[in-house]
Amino acid sequence: MSITLEQAEKIISIAKNKSIELNTKMNIAIVDAGANLVAFARMDGAWLGSLDISIKKAKTARFFDMNTGVIGELSQPGGSLYNIEHSNGGLITFPGGVPVKDANGNIIGAIGVSGSTVENDHAVAEAGALAS
Amino acid sequence: MSITLEQAEKIISIAKNKSIELNTKMNIAIVDAGANLVAFARMDGAWLGSLDISIKKAKTARFFDMNTGVIGELSQPGGSLYNIEHSNGGLITFPGGVPVKDANGNIIGAIGVSGSTVENDHAVAEAGALAS
Amino acid sequence: MSITLEQAEKIISIAKNKSIELNTKMNIAIVDAGANLVAFARMDGAWLGSLDISIKKAKTARFFDMNTGVIGELSQPGGSLYNIEHSNGGLITFPGGVPVKDANGNIIGAIGVSGSTVENDHAVAEAGALAS
Amino acid sequence: MSITLEQAEKIISIAKNKSIELNTKMNIAIVDAGANLVAFARMDGAWLGSLDISIKKAKTARFFDMNTGVIGELSQPGGSLYNIEHSNGGLITFPGGVPVKDANGNIIGAIGVSGSTVENDHAVAEAGALAS
Repeated sequence: MSITLEQAEKIISIAKNKSIELNTKMNIAIVDAGANLVAFARMDGAWLGSLDISIKKAKTARFFDMNTGVIGELSQPGGSLYNIEHSNGGLITFPGGVPVKDANGNIIGAIGVSGSTVENDHAVAEAGALAS
Repeated sequence: MSITLEQAEKIISIAKNKSIELNTKMNIAIVDAGANLVAFARMDGAWLGSLDISIKKAKTARFFDMNTGVIGELSQPGGSLYNIEHSNGGLITFPGGVPVKDANGNIIGAIGVSGSTVENDHAVAEAGALAS
Repeated sequence: MSITLEQAEKIISIAKNKSIELNTKMNIAIVDAGANLVAFARMDGAWLGSLDISIKKAKTARFFDMNTGVIGELSQPGGSLYNIEHSNGGLITFPGGVPVKDANGNIIGAIGVSGSTVENDHAVAEAGALAS
Repeated sequence: MSITLEQAEKIISIAKNKSIELNTKMNIAIVDAGANLVAFARMDGAWLGSLDISIKKAKTARFFDMNTGVIGELSQPGGSLYNIEHSNGGLITFPGGVPVKDANGNIIGAIGVSGSTVENDHAVAEAGALAS
């Protein structure tokens, strides 16, 4: 199963609320099980450069079925996955990408958020992912 | 002025309704005055290949401030803009991309729609554009 | 549902047999429901340039859930989808790409074949698709 | 001489068995002496993001006729090949890519494996390479 547009829009709505709560302006991207974009929203005034980053975070989280920040810990100099970011047309491996699961724990897509600190990006992504 | 996320989401909502009315499944993309993505929605079961096309249609409409189909008439073999599609990382010049204007007629963004015939794509894009 | 590796390898095996029967040397690519590569085989002596074409044909067939040659009829100069090939990182719209369906008629992936005339390419793709 | 499709498919078969033995799900790519893809298999449930990585590992191993992990030791900050990953459309320089040799020790291609830890990736690649 893959995420529906209705689920994706609900996740974006909750992520936007979390973003407002944190006083941030975010780009929010949702991809399906095939890592293809389903829904996207850029909040007014959010960084333009975060548009591509939010999509790449969502794709990266689905490409490897884990939070993007976990990959970033392994891709540092000397790490086992050093420079993995050069694959797949460009990965983003710092926090802000989180897999989205259905009620049974199956991964049905992913959310990627970018526009603030990586802590805030991750908090908004997690709030969205938990809504599914 | 550029389109707001709230306006973009309203346009997508109206475009989805028009798409359902036409019994089609669409990819719908909204870009701002800077031709950067603001909001996107892929309806369940819509063609995967139309994702990129809908975004390129929206960008193309804003790049040249006209309906994409108008450019396609000029980009034919022997035409004055022959193969303009090679620019800007790939343009789409058949119908389905329409500029979005504010109440004063100023262009504030564009909508791109893909997922059916070009006639349906354009009808959905126009319905969305008129909603702004 | 998406195609399994076992199904993909069976399809490639049958496509190779058809290719030998036609006295041709083919590149054969199978993608899943998400248009991502599942299996690939390049027969000894097959054209190198057909490697990328076979993969793009498989992706194109799944992107739009139809035979690639159908799109090519619409993308000619003056056609409704003129220059659609500029989307999705490059489409191939001449024959040789065919959707793969399960027993219930649901599309679970696609096959792309390149290495001979488009008639032979299509014949081999169709033989493979029918094997699923 | 370059690897044949028959040899490549035998290598993939052995690599799949090794992958099952290690309880992993791998993407396995084989390139020829020209660093062009000959055969590929993505095991059911393997990471989507490992598709591109497995192909890049195979290419990288043949581009420089050595195990990918050896290059990764030299591409670290301060190393003699710092950021070599930017070349050739993206290299992958952590373990999992291994040259494939004929009975006389001549390199006839390479195998790239991705889908688990780099230790497992390398173990599967080596099992495959030894089968040639």
